[in-house]
Amino acid sequence: MSYFDTASSAPLHPVARQALQAALDEGWADPARLHREGRRARMLLDAARQTAAEAVGCRPDELVFTSSGTRALHTGITGALAGRRRTGDHLMVSAVEHSAVLHTAERHSAGGGTVTEVPVDRTGKVAPDGFAEALRPDTALACLQSANHEVGTEQPVAEVAEVCRAAGVPLLVDAAQSLGWGPVPGPWSLLAASAHKWGGPAGVGLLVVRKGTRFAPQDPAGERESGRAAGFENVPAVVAAAASLRAVRAEAAGEAARLRELTDRIRARVPEVVPDAEVVGDPVRRLPHLVTFSCLYVDGETLLHELDRSGFSVSSGSSCTSSTLTPSHVLRAMGVLSEGNVRVSLPPGTGAEEVERFLDVLPGVVAGVREKWGAGADAPGAGGELTVDAVGRRCPVPVIELAKVFGRVPVGGTVTVLADDEAARLDIPAWCEMRGQEYLGEHPSDRGTAYVVRRVS
Amino acid sequence: MSYFDTASSAPLHPVARQALQAALDEGWADPARLHREGRRARMLLDAARQTAAEAVGCRPDELVFTSSGTRALHTGITGALAGRRRTGDHLMVSAVEHSAVLHTAERHSAGGGTVTEVPVDRTGKVAPDGFAEALRPDTALACLQSANHEVGTEQPVAEVAEVCRAAGVPLLVDAAQSLGWGPVPGPWSLLAASAHKWGGPAGVGLLVVRKGTRFAPQDPAGERESGRAAGFENVPAVVAAAASLRAVRAEAAGEAARLRELTDRIRARVPEVVPDAEVVGDPVRRLPHLVTFSCLYVDGETLLHELDRSGFSVSSGSSCTSSTLTPSHVLRAMGVLSEGNVRVSLPPGTGAEEVERFLDVLPGVVAGVREKWGAGADAPGAGGELTVDAVGRRCPVPVIELAKVFGRVPVGGTVTVLADDEAARLDIPAWCEMRGQEYLGEHPSDRGTAYVVRRVS
Repeated sequence: MSYFDTASSAPLHPVARQALQAALDEGWADPARLHREGRRARMLLDAARQTAAEAVGCRPDELVFTSSGTRALHTGITGALAGRRRTGDHLMVSAVEHSAVLHTAERHSAGGGTVTEVPVDRTGKVAPDGFAEALRPDTALACLQSANHEVGTEQPVAEVAEVCRAAGVPLLVDAAQSLGWGPVPGPWSLLAASAHKWGGPAGVGLLVVRKGTRFAPQDPAGERESGRAAGFENVPAVVAAAASLRAVRAEAAGEAARLRELTDRIRARVPEVVPDAEVVGDPVRRLPHLVTFSCLYVDGETLLHELDRSGFSVSSGSSCTSSTLTPSHVLRAMGVLSEGNVRVSLPPGTGAEEVERFLDVLPGVVAGVREKWGAGADAPGAGGELTVDAVGRRCPVPVIELAKVFGRVPVGGTVTVLADDEAARLDIPAWCEMRGQEYLGEHPSDRGTAYVVRRVS
Repeated sequence: MSYFDTASSAPLHPVARQALQAALDEGWADPARLHREGRRARMLLDAARQTAAEAVGCRPDELVFTSSGTRALHTGITGALAGRRRTGDHLMVSAVEHSAVLHTAERHSAGGGTVTEVPVDRTGKVAPDGFAEALRPDTALACLQSANHEVGTEQPVAEVAEVCRAAGVPLLVDAAQSLGWGPVPGPWSLLAASAHKWGGPAGVGLLVVRKGTRFAPQDPAGERESGRAAGFENVPAVVAAAASLRAVRAEAAGEAARLRELTDRIRARVPEVVPDAEVVGDPVRRLPHLVTFSCLYVDGETLLHELDRSGFSVSSGSSCTSSTLTPSHVLRAMGVLSEGNVRVSLPPGTGAEEVERFLDVLPGVVAGVREKWGAGADAPGAGGELTVDAVGRRCPVPVIELAKVFGRVPVGGTVTVLADDEAARLDIPAWCEMRGQEYLGEHPSDRGTAYVVRRVS
């Protein structure tokens, strides 16, 4: 088995496991108590805070441990917004933030606040200029990830932090995907991260609030973690999180170079060995261990199951693999194909032979799924206009039906696809772009939405 | 060393440790993912939910795992209040709830809601009748602990739950201190608990919301744990929590009987071997492993340190051991002595010889602290009225000064103590009750508050 889904959760680092064992013996008591067991837990907690602060590049009293990265984001965003209430209630987020950020923004919006989603380009990157333009006099807080969790694209965090500082607006950085690789540059004000993403245990997040940042925690009052993280401190897990962060950092430079070669290899080979596949995300400014691609005429769920049967654990932003039946908001914001989407994120230590095996297996798996869907079958010729009814059919059927009949219309003719699956809105234009055909647009129809494509070659 | 502070945090149960080890290998992946590591984590999570639900006596789909007991209380209270917004915004809590409940109530009150604190008697118990009287047509939620965390008194939860059901008001039970001993009886609607109190790991709470209870989570939306607990599920810790809950329940009946004998022994012996000591809490309807007493003329912090040096780890609700310099709100609500307060909470497996050793050591430790404070020294006689100035002096000085001069006034005479330590308000009346003297009341004075005591014997 090859586990290629470290961006969802990394396997526990050996150092995390050792530290957890030791701290279960030494750090299980309440660090707020005066007895020796309590004082011992307090010492371990303080030492872990020191270690984590060094890795982040902040003061220990600027850093608290939360129960998860999601909780760090909730607390950080709501506390920073409340701290700057007098300035205004405008919140800025990039369109490709983690759902924990976007859900907090939705809650802010539902409570009467205003939210601007800053768009990204086709690689998933915000432009510092675009960020600057969206800043307003009533902007209370801006949020930007250090790197995207689905496509690996690194954001220009240092530049955006400078833009925000110049405007007097605090920037919160979601560093969940990158903190194991290195500190976040630039004059940011708040930072959140999650230990299980770097090989630490579940149940530990970090929230950093730089001195001088206005902050008013919105949770009920609490004595623990400077009033910024309610509930009994999870000392053993915190100790394991800090120890493993230091350990992965010590290995980061070498491991980044090695994994980047492997993901470069995947980026280069997938389009060569899989027809109608598109690699997405920035080819250069990206996380070293993560690569994402999408394959036409394939549904993500079947593809994942087939790869799993072949011994590879990956994830997907395709609509068919989620309970909401909508494609990943990241891929949608980038305007790239979502069907047959595969994210490969390699854990440290992944061998080149595992990646080669994946590249050997992938073409057959994709071909098998396409065959199951009947994609690529020829059909007899037709006149200048054709309509395909795919209403009620889920991704990837609308695109498969489009491709099936496309050869039947002459160059200059059009195909109209009727569909009500949300993914079609993203995937039909993406198919046109990949195949060099002309997308004429969509309009409402009696049966779902009509997507119109002109054959140009 | 004898660790007698299991009510703060219990040492990790051996079953919890074994389950955690196994689940770190098997359950570290994201249970929301479709690959085999994810499916394995999902299976472990589902099995843990089933186990925990059996121990609670609820359906698995009524139970979610949170990151702590405090978080379960926050989410439970705010969600239940929001779910019944149309009925009203009145929240009822007992005066001796855990600070996590009272802090959430303060936040509700600060947001414009109304809160009633139901008083308790001198043993720390609410009366079901008193609870019934406080219910109003606009009561959205009532909260009551199953047993008190500082004095061990069991609350009449089943009776109060019946009263609430009859009024159509949901009752949330904080079962943090008792869930390891057995299920909570009665028709309650919500229940919260914390795994590290029963020997499970830190980082796991339970929130149960019975079917039919109106509930609207107030955190930003999330896909995990039915939208009631944000953040990545901590599967290894949840598995350990559920396994240890089952294990402690299997041992509960025998261990309760054994520990009750030991705490009965402490309750009986402390007043015999320590002069001017008062055992507090209900002598019968109480947790089996917990006993609390207070000693006149002693400060809690020094007492704790001296007991620690003698090999006993206990905790205290005295003002001098907390950062807020106010005595425990529980002791205050009960109207009992707070100075020299000691809570002994025995972990499972505590031996009788440890308890005997504690009873051997305690009198000397208390006497040593009293000697340090100069308590009990005689002073020459005086007239019918005497004033002692203890302004600026912290607990236990005001009571020590009162006791020092008390013998100098004749029967019928009065002593006035001037003090500005908040603990004096509780401890001077408590001293009068313990010594059979008459407390005449307090009034403001130029220097702090004046507390007046008449000598009657």
